[in-house]
Amino acid sequence: MKIQNEVYLDNAATTQVYDEVINIIDESLRNSFYNPSSEYKPAIETGKQIEKARKEIANQLGFNPDEIYFTSGATESNNTIIRGVVEKARKPFNIVTSKIEHPSIMEVLKFYEGKGVDIRYVSVDSFGNLDIEELRESIDENTALVSIMAVNNEIGTILDLDKVKEVIKEKNPNAIFHTDYVQALLKTNPDQLDLKKLKPDAVSVTAHKIHGPKGIGVLALRKNKKIAPLILGGGQERNFRSGTENVPGILAFAKAIELLSENLEEKNKKLQKLKDLLIERIMYELDDVSVNSP
Amino acid sequence: MKIQNEVYLDNAATTQVYDEVINIIDESLRNSFYNPSSEYKPAIETGKQIEKARKEIANQLGFNPDEIYFTSGATESNNTIIRGVVEKARKPFNIVTSKIEHPSIMEVLKFYEGKGVDIRYVSVDSFGNLDIEELRESIDENTALVSIMAVNNEIGTILDLDKVKEVIKEKNPNAIFHTDYVQALLKTNPDQLDLKKLKPDAVSVTAHKIHGPKGIGVLALRKNKKIAPLILGGGQERNFRSGTENVPGILAFAKAIELLSENLEEKNKKLQKLKDLLIERIMYELDDVSVNSP
Repeated sequence: MKIQNEVYLDNAATTQVYDEVINIIDESLRNSFYNPSSEYKPAIETGKQIEKARKEIANQLGFNPDEIYFTSGATESNNTIIRGVVEKARKPFNIVTSKIEHPSIMEVLKFYEGKGVDIRYVSVDSFGNLDIEELRESIDENTALVSIMAVNNEIGTILDLDKVKEVIKEKNPNAIFHTDYVQALLKTNPDQLDLKKLKPDAVSVTAHKIHGPKGIGVLALRKNKKIAPLILGGGQERNFRSGTENVPGILAFAKAIELLSENLEEKNKKLQKLKDLLIERIMYELDDVSVNSP
Repeated sequence: MKIQNEVYLDNAATTQVYDEVINIIDESLRNSFYNPSSEYKPAIETGKQIEKARKEIANQLGFNPDEIYFTSGATESNNTIIRGVVEKARKPFNIVTSKIEHPSIMEVLKFYEGKGVDIRYVSVDSFGNLDIEELRESIDENTALVSIMAVNNEIGTILDLDKVKEVIKEKNPNAIFHTDYVQALLKTNPDQLDLKKLKPDAVSVTAHKIHGPKGIGVLALRKNKKIAPLILGGGQERNFRSGTENVPGILAFAKAIELLSENLEEKNKKLQKLKDLLIERIMYELDDVSVNSP
């Protein structure tokens, strides 16, 4: 079923899993199948493996390890930040977002809008660039959350999050600044969307967009920002996300990050060249073609 | 790190993954990494694999394939049924449960109790058997949900779900009958807790308790019972559970069920013998020992 002699161009939907990542999953399924919540040696060792992976991921995102919460993917991460803010927020409050967010943001916001929550959708231009003036007018002293994606999943726009951060600081520094970073993680140049410089309050990412497996994601959330948990139970993930940890998924996510971040600049340059070549050839071979992406 | 010359006795916490299941995961990660929501051949083929697995699991649980919703595990499944009922229920309503449910039921119910929802906890005796008289008194015309576990995760009590079903039928046939079936799936004899005879409205199960991987579970829910979804977004799982499907996890869950259900009666007889031997030897070798389980 694998594509042979064909070129896979759907990396924004999902990516092929790295062989080294598959090996990590295999190894974990065989040898660290233990429940990290159990209290004997191999179970405790399994817990330590998770903490090592958490550190690797935290480092990449510019968060502390104890600010990393493993989820089943970015959809859950996005649902968690919105529901968590709504359940914790004091009335009156509002949420500010863009008109081009992923459905895992949009559908949750629409759900709450239907229940009377004040949701403010900021416009974008035809290239997907945010209207910063409208953003400025939308944020006020009651804004609990500003959620703006980093890279659009359909047209590839890189949103100006530095500007977003600046406006939040100016209008309401207490608002939680969240970004759906799914399409940006290790896919932009180091000078763009640098999380360590940007320092958002909350970030959603997922493994399967960066050559990791499906079913594992992260919500990173600063310790000083308190929101309600989405999934309750046994108290895993420091009481914020219950459920037996997806150990192979967690280790695989860290491995994918480690592998992809090696020589990233070089990889991105190659990718850029391939992209330019593709666009050039399509434009040359076909009539009536235009590029939607900025 | 794997235990050598030791006996693993923590199967109620998690189980060792079958080699054949690991092979399925490996194969899927390599060759069906596609996003089932994409619209080209290998992606569509990946979607078909999921539907085959769904059919296998549905058959085992006595549900229709379109009543099976994949989740990240039983904790999410349990959270989904409770939150989904609460969000959909018309006031006044109440929820009936037992005093010995898993934290993934208990913590969610406590959360809603704190918000004023009427939660009724039915007592059990010292062996964990449900007080059926108290159950009968607890269910009334406003009961929206009755959630009773099938097998207790700490003392192994097999709860009398036939009786529970009978009482629900008698007192309020419209109440949704849910069971946390995590510790029962393929671990009881065919004459006990037979889901095809019992026909509950909703069932939570997870793969990692039956030699499958962590991070994949199911909520089975009858088509005529409508509840609100927990995780919104791209509309996967017939708009009930969004997020890119955990393909390897889903295929692995079906494989684990297929493998474990082979010669189940024989396996259970062997297990029973080993259990009797263990208890006998412990009783013989040690003083002051008593068995907590019924």
